[in-house]
Amino acid sequence: MHRPVHEEHHFTAGETVRDIVIGMSDGLTVPFALAAGLSSTAVATSIIVTAGLAEIAAGSIAMGLGGYLAARSDAEHYASEKAREEREVEVVPQAEEDEVSAVFREYGLTEAEIAPVLRSFRERPDAWVDFMMRFELNLEEPDPRRALSSALTIAGAYIVGGLIPLSPYMVLPTASAALPVSVTVTIAALSVFGYVKGRFTGTRPWRSALQTALIGGAAAAAAFLIARVFA
Amino acid sequence: MHRPVHEEHHFTAGETVRDIVIGMSDGLTVPFALAAGLSSTAVATSIIVTAGLAEIAAGSIAMGLGGYLAARSDAEHYASEKAREEREVEVVPQAEEDEVSAVFREYGLTEAEIAPVLRSFRERPDAWVDFMMRFELNLEEPDPRRALSSALTIAGAYIVGGLIPLSPYMVLPTASAALPVSVTVTIAALSVFGYVKGRFTGTRPWRSALQTALIGGAAAAAAFLIARVFA
Repeated sequence: MHRPVHEEHHFTAGETVRDIVIGMSDGLTVPFALAAGLSSTAVATSIIVTAGLAEIAAGSIAMGLGGYLAARSDAEHYASEKAREEREVEVVPQAEEDEVSAVFREYGLTEAEIAPVLRSFRERPDAWVDFMMRFELNLEEPDPRRALSSALTIAGAYIVGGLIPLSPYMVLPTASAALPVSVTVTIAALSVFGYVKGRFTGTRPWRSALQTALIGGAAAAAAFLIARVFA
Repeated sequence: MHRPVHEEHHFTAGETVRDIVIGMSDGLTVPFALAAGLSSTAVATSIIVTAGLAEIAAGSIAMGLGGYLAARSDAEHYASEKAREEREVEVVPQAEEDEVSAVFREYGLTEAEIAPVLRSFRERPDAWVDFMMRFELNLEEPDPRRALSSALTIAGAYIVGGLIPLSPYMVLPTASAALPVSVTVTIAALSVFGYVKGRFTGTRPWRSALQTALIGGAAAAAAFLIARVFA
């Protein structure tokens, strides 16, 4: 449909990359901030590690299972809306033709220019329904097999991301020794991750690196202050 | 464009409702699971409350600020893609006409039926660009003013959601006393929230209630087991 060179200009991230980005940005950020927050209190590193692992378990399941069920709902929503459009194209074709006309009138087409499109749709109800799904309802057909792999990718990326800020607390004896290492390692990981994410999604890479590091830093600073006030 | 009765059939959640759903589902789930996980260890309720508040601070900032920056990136992405299409429509109109034709050929239209549409677009470059943005690139124009209110809504919903599972640990003396109250209150809140969410998004409400409670319960159970193993 496109010349390859054009396609490349409009390059956007594949779905697996998008799932890794979703899981890893939260995985790097929230366990990092939680551990930093608990470091401001007098608790032992073993409790910080336990809390961090509990957070990783909870976060990865909430994101993965949540994503899985949302994808399944989307697939069912698409199927039920499609069944409705199929019924309407058959039962109230005039109303559906008005809707097609409305879509094209938005782009300045006249009734005379729209007429051949309507004629073509009357002969091809399947194409008509596909058109209504995409251009009236703005729904893309979800791939039902993606739900499970998407859920596992998001959960896995969350776990990998979350173990990075937590690892210094596992090997160093005190929270005050582990905190600066965790901050350094995680801000570096967030920057690299933000840079790579920017390359994949078409955002300027250095700006993406800065933004990702900023979110992580702000979350960690807020958690640190809140924990210090309430501990 | 539609008769009201038809519009109502395709009812989908407004953007504010969607933001509340995003913030509250994670806010109810992750702090709940973290507190449940820490309850399986011997730590004092004051540490559970501190960890929970640190998590709420981190999670609400990660989601709110992350959402804000993502919305800003989307707006910039849209603007740069639109500038590209405007240039292409002017510089390589033949290539862009081929792309319009490709969109319509997917729906079974012949070149003769497409010709008047192309003629109309040549006279209206603005409509042509709008058409390419939506139908070729599948991009909707984001509202730049939404970014801030969306970020605040998501963060606020996360905070409100997170304080529900945490409140029993604030008032009851021991974690073993607070845990069953937190589980009961939160599973009830998740079910009500899931039911209301289902009403707004067109999913069957009882099923949505069950799914939301299931995600929260699974995340809490995993956090509880992980914390018990590692504590």
